[in-house]
Amino acid sequence: MTSPFAAVLFALEAFYQAFASRDLDAMDDLWDTQGPVSCIHPGWHPLSGRAEVMAAWQAILANTNTPKAEMVDVALHQHGGVVVATGFERIEGHHLAVTNVLVERNGRWLMVHHQAGPVAVQPEFEEPAPSSPDPLAVN
Amino acid sequence: MTSPFAAVLFALEAFYQAFASRDLDAMDDLWDTQGPVSCIHPGWHPLSGRAEVMAAWQAILANTNTPKAEMVDVALHQHGGVVVATGFERIEGHHLAVTNVLVERNGRWLMVHHQAGPVAVQPEFEEPAPSSPDPLAVN
Repeated sequence: MTSPFAAVLFALEAFYQAFASRDLDAMDDLWDTQGPVSCIHPGWHPLSGRAEVMAAWQAILANTNTPKAEMVDVALHQHGGVVVATGFERIEGHHLAVTNVLVERNGRWLMVHHQAGPVAVQPEFEEPAPSSPDPLAVN
Repeated sequence: MTSPFAAVLFALEAFYQAFASRDLDAMDDLWDTQGPVSCIHPGWHPLSGRAEVMAAWQAILANTNTPKAEMVDVALHQHGGVVVATGFERIEGHHLAVTNVLVERNGRWLMVHHQAGPVAVQPEFEEPAPSSPDPLAVN
């Protein structure tokens, strides 16, 4: 099996893009329809089954106060046709620790599980230098 | 493929038994050695790789203040040879939402990922009636 990591990263980017743009149709399309799915939002009880999981996303994405999120410091752990992706969700400068589990369906990777929760100590990352129109300002 | 759920529940019980008895050898034996492993303890940063994951368990199990935990309200989600188990960890009457991911190795199910985090509202379960030496007290 060739490494699926580029395709998994693409799927994760699409997931956080759907979250950021509050696009329920895109979010629905990113979750598997052929097997069981589950989800644990921060502070929530575990959700099981597509109806429960998508109803929660509908509520979250309908809320215009829902902040934008991106996944950073991603580590991928492959178990055959399943990948466990761990890392941080960066939400308005704050970080949550996150698990995303994806399965492969005909070369496409789809979400089957998500859990995010708080971290006691915020991580520190080396941020890339901001791009500048002044090349003299770039080290 | 026959349902692995009894074997998965057995593995989960062994996992929480190792935790409760602070048995590092048993805990080590319950985590897969053939593929990648990962772990997100409550409030911790994500850990990747067996060395990091087992070092954290060593620290946790060496602490005699580490409380006992059990998993309740378990829901199992099978993705081929991988099962995503969600539910609650009950720790001294308090509950965390938890994900445990296990893989099948020669009929035995082994841990490859664990994440636990707080819930905003504690769940309410119908507790079994406490056993009583007085049969008249039993409804």
